[in-house]
Amino acid sequence: MTNFRPRKLPPNITEDAFQRFATKVINICGSENVKIISATLELIDGDYMQSCKAHASAIISPRNVPEVQDTVRLCNKLCVPLWPFSAGRNIGYGGTAPRVSVSVRMDMGLHMNKVLNVSVEGSYTLVEPGVTYFELHDYLEEHKLRVPDVGGGSIIGNAVERGVGYSKHQDHGIMHCGLEVILPDGELLLAALQLWLWPYNDGIFTQSSLGIVVKMGIWLMPNPGGFQAYMITFPRDDDLPKITDTIRPLRLQMVLQNVLTLRHITLDAAVANNKASYTDRKEPWNGDELYAIAQKLDLGYWNSFGAVYGPEPTRKVLLEFIKGVPLAIPGSEFWLPEDRTEPFSVLHTRAKVLQGIPTTNELSHLFFSPISKITGKDATAQYDLSKKRCFEAGFDFNGNFVVGMRAMHHSVWNVFNREGPEARKKARWLILTLVDDCAARGWAEYRTHIPLMDQIANTQNFNDTAQMKLNEKIKNAVDPNGILAPGKNGIWPNKYKKKGWVLDAASNMNNEVSK
Amino acid sequence: MTNFRPRKLPPNITEDAFQRFATKVINICGSENVKIISATLELIDGDYMQSCKAHASAIISPRNVPEVQDTVRLCNKLCVPLWPFSAGRNIGYGGTAPRVSVSVRMDMGLHMNKVLNVSVEGSYTLVEPGVTYFELHDYLEEHKLRVPDVGGGSIIGNAVERGVGYSKHQDHGIMHCGLEVILPDGELLLAALQLWLWPYNDGIFTQSSLGIVVKMGIWLMPNPGGFQAYMITFPRDDDLPKITDTIRPLRLQMVLQNVLTLRHITLDAAVANNKASYTDRKEPWNGDELYAIAQKLDLGYWNSFGAVYGPEPTRKVLLEFIKGVPLAIPGSEFWLPEDRTEPFSVLHTRAKVLQGIPTTNELSHLFFSPISKITGKDATAQYDLSKKRCFEAGFDFNGNFVVGMRAMHHSVWNVFNREGPEARKKARWLILTLVDDCAARGWAEYRTHIPLMDQIANTQNFNDTAQMKLNEKIKNAVDPNGILAPGKNGIWPNKYKKKGWVLDAASNMNNEVSK
Ligand SMILES: Cc1cc2nc3c(=O)[nH]c(=O)nc-3n(C[C@H](O)[C@H](O)[C@H](O)COP(=O)(O)OP(=O)(O)OC[C@H]3O[C@@H](n4cnc5c(N)ncnc54)[C@H](O)[C@@H]3O)c2cc1C
Ligand SMILES: Cc1cc2nc3c(=O)[nH]c(=O)nc-3n(C[C@H](O)[C@H](O)[C@H](O)COP(=O)(O)OP(=O)(O)OC[C@H]3O[C@@H](n4cnc5c(N)ncnc54)[C@H](O)[C@@H]3O)c2cc1C
Repeated sequence: MTNFRPRKLPPNITEDAFQRFATKVINICGSENVKIISATLELIDGDYMQSCKAHASAIISPRNVPEVQDTVRLCNKLCVPLWPFSAGRNIGYGGTAPRVSVSVRMDMGLHMNKVLNVSVEGSYTLVEPGVTYFELHDYLEEHKLRVPDVGGGSIIGNAVERGVGYSKHQDHGIMHCGLEVILPDGELLLAALQLWLWPYNDGIFTQSSLGIVVKMGIWLMPNPGGFQAYMITFPRDDDLPKITDTIRPLRLQMVLQNVLTLRHITLDAAVANNKASYTDRKEPWNGDELYAIAQKLDLGYWNSFGAVYGPEPTRKVLLEFIKGVPLAIPGSEFWLPEDRTEPFSVLHTRAKVLQGIPTTNELSHLFFSPISKITGKDATAQYDLSKKRCFEAGFDFNGNFVVGMRAMHHSVWNVFNREGPEARKKARWLILTLVDDCAARGWAEYRTHIPLMDQIANTQNFNDTAQMKLNEKIKNAVDPNGILAPGKNGIWPNKYKKKGWVLDAASNMNNEVSK
Repeated sequence: MTNFRPRKLPPNITEDAFQRFATKVINICGSENVKIISATLELIDGDYMQSCKAHASAIISPRNVPEVQDTVRLCNKLCVPLWPFSAGRNIGYGGTAPRVSVSVRMDMGLHMNKVLNVSVEGSYTLVEPGVTYFELHDYLEEHKLRVPDVGGGSIIGNAVERGVGYSKHQDHGIMHCGLEVILPDGELLLAALQLWLWPYNDGIFTQSSLGIVVKMGIWLMPNPGGFQAYMITFPRDDDLPKITDTIRPLRLQMVLQNVLTLRHITLDAAVANNKASYTDRKEPWNGDELYAIAQKLDLGYWNSFGAVYGPEPTRKVLLEFIKGVPLAIPGSEFWLPEDRTEPFSVLHTRAKVLQGIPTTNELSHLFFSPISKITGKDATAQYDLSKKRCFEAGFDFNGNFVVGMRAMHHSVWNVFNREGPEARKKARWLILTLVDDCAARGWAEYRTHIPLMDQIANTQNFNDTAQMKLNEKIKNAVDPNGILAPGKNGIWPNKYKKKGWVLDAASNMNNEVSK
């Protein structure tokens, strides 16, 4: 009999139990679909296109729904922790790394990767976990339908984490039209939106450890009859509050039909070229340098990207309103794609993304994502704080604001050189400090990287952590053995002694878990 | 010591326990806010503006959140079933009647009826349960904001039941921006949408028995810069499929910015005048008569109502598209409010409602509300079936379709004379039959009247009632004593022996519960 010995055993699992688990799961999924992460397996640090093997004891790739169900039931019997993923590209938020670091990981996307159905009439599609935005796009081209957003990752992985996009379909978590979920007891559930009696249960399967999504219906963008992307450049750093307050009413009135992004010059400078091409200095850029770069690139200090959708007369009317924005903010300018001829133009990329052609032309690393009200005051306060902390850590501020209907997602892109231990430490200090800074000001984060989950969950503590108590109650009722993604977003099942597992700021600072 | 003896005791509550409950709850809420429904209290059958006293053992009206919490804790201790309501105008779906008929009812709206906050900038408001659409409207007028819909009932009562409106904010259940909820253990929870880590928990408090909503933030419609209501009349009964298929793409492309309603001529005939004014016959109208009425009223056989929002140039462009609809369907006509001068014009009412001025000019009774896809085929199939069954029961078909973005709510208004026992029986037969008819065709109902809850819940039985099992698990975890709205939407807590409580079609037919 083969000996299946992983690099490290999951908590409370004996070598013998793991042995039995491995034998049985091979029976279920086939030996070619069970990979034990043994001590001899070579690890390639940082190769994030691979699925972070270091952090698992095994990777299982089921071929169909019954195999998922049987594996879940087996995990339940042996109390083996299981962490599902779809494309494993959750870059910036932990990749495929599980919170309990030697969990068994379930690769939902390897085999279950089909577009099951496309309804042109109803403008939706039904997909399996492995379907990525790119694949779906290719499939749809012929039907004149478009995917609702950016590339990278899978439709399901992005939607269950409530990924935010830039097109008309901003919040992917609510753009689904029905989920099929395997519950922790192995049962198959259809969690529909809207159509039934009963509490809405679909939401509890987003950013969740309550189920494994095996199918999802997702709304597509019907051909709107026409499309026009544009960019508005704003010259000055302190234009930010005026921009925000000018945009808000346009967004509320749906003159701005899609999510508008407002990007700091450092992001667009990085797209155009690497930092060394601008300067020899290692320190963060100062204001004068950034103004000089903006001038050189013929961009603003802040640059915003949007699009109008509809037949020509509709677009014309909406664009007239939008062209009014620059009038309110001196020195700002309105651009169409044909006005920009530089080799790497964000506007050209967006001109694709915003009409639903996925791209990966923009890349980076550790995200910090607080939410704010859409007001100049709040935007400025978040910007000033983040910039100050970035500078203290010796980094440039790289960030953007994604202006939704009723709130802004602010992303601080914590870009650092993973090779230097000093930079790593500073990056960690920066994000840990920002969590507390934001909590003190009442700003919450909508999503986070694995090691920060406890710390951020802990800041969302209205009325003596009432929400966490409810989450725990539901978790324990639905997953009494705590097998599914234990610790995800700070929710620890009874089976895990929370106190021993929680990572606070201090332990994160002294720990290399966050890499 | 006063003897508090209700007309009937709640299940498993002894006279002594009720006595203790009454004494204590008076201590909490004050004697003027506790009304015991004694055997001597006069009942006025059918006076639905009163709160159906017959169906309760007591009505408690707490004055503030701590009183709600203390009362809930008391109910928990004594296992007293509790059914909250806000305005008690849930007409057509059971009024304030609780499913377990001698529950204690909690009138959330009597004292807790304040508009706590209005943010013009953010275009939202924070309200208590007693605030109705009318009251809020008055409050908002001066701020140039508008409520998101029809009148009747409270903002909170309507939103928690996922009421559907006609304006741009169709689904009220998702137009909230944060709930404060008292859980069955008395704890206060803030269930925010969007802004946090963790599963979305707000949805589980809609159509739910998991909490009592004490505050809700709700999004308001900002001034869109202009408004124009319109009506399109379609001449023939069999225009229905063509109308649906013509509307769908316009809705998906957001040329139709709001919910479009498509009403059967009987509804508008009833608004204009009572049936006796048209005919002496008691039987349902036949097709020829309806065509004659439509002609007399200068209306279509189907009449649809909508509006465009935005500044003048936007409205003009959108209206051009909408005016194209009649071209596709011969004989149909486009009307503006100024074109209609009859005394009771639905278009004039809608011209108010659709811009957020609540009205109550349209009235009726027992709703049957299945959902369908937005296709001519589905609309016709639902219409044909409902009409056939209405005729078999000897009723006119009164109905409309509310065309959302991705699905239609079809309402069959079961209007009957409550006085006649025969009509009552037929009305019951009709609705019980329609539930099964629709289930057989895969159509679900989104909301229902008290006695039908079990029967409809039972039709939503994908994979051996997996959804119901999940609902029960969560219910028992969050409300182990089963005190809050036991039986609501068919969800029975462990404390109640489900088998003894469930009402199936046969028991509903033989029962007067449904009145
Ligand atoms: C440069 C860059 C830009 C980015 N831009 C954006 C952006 O604009 N908006 C945005 O939202 N994100 C963005 N991201 C983050 C991320 O890449 C995407 O959200 C991505 O789509 C995640 O999808 P995935 O399938 O790879 O997720 P995975 O890594 O497969 O899954 C992520 C997590 O979701 C859960 N999960 C996945 N599949 C399932 C399932 N079937 N059942 C249950 N749980 C499951 C698991 O907890 C898993 O760990 C960006 C990342 C980078 C590097
Ligand atoms: C002619 C007519 C037209 C109608 N048109 C529509 C329509 O277009 N769209 C529509 O959606 N409805 C419609 N209705 C149905 C109904 O009138 C409305 O939905 C109404 O707004 C219900 O609000 P309410 O405050 O009166 O509810 P209530 O009767 O107070 O409450 C309804 C139920 O919600 C729950 N509930 C209420 N308050 C709370 C709370 N604070 N915490 C927890 N649970 C609570 C309870 O289960 C309660 O029984 C119509 C009714 C009539 C008669």
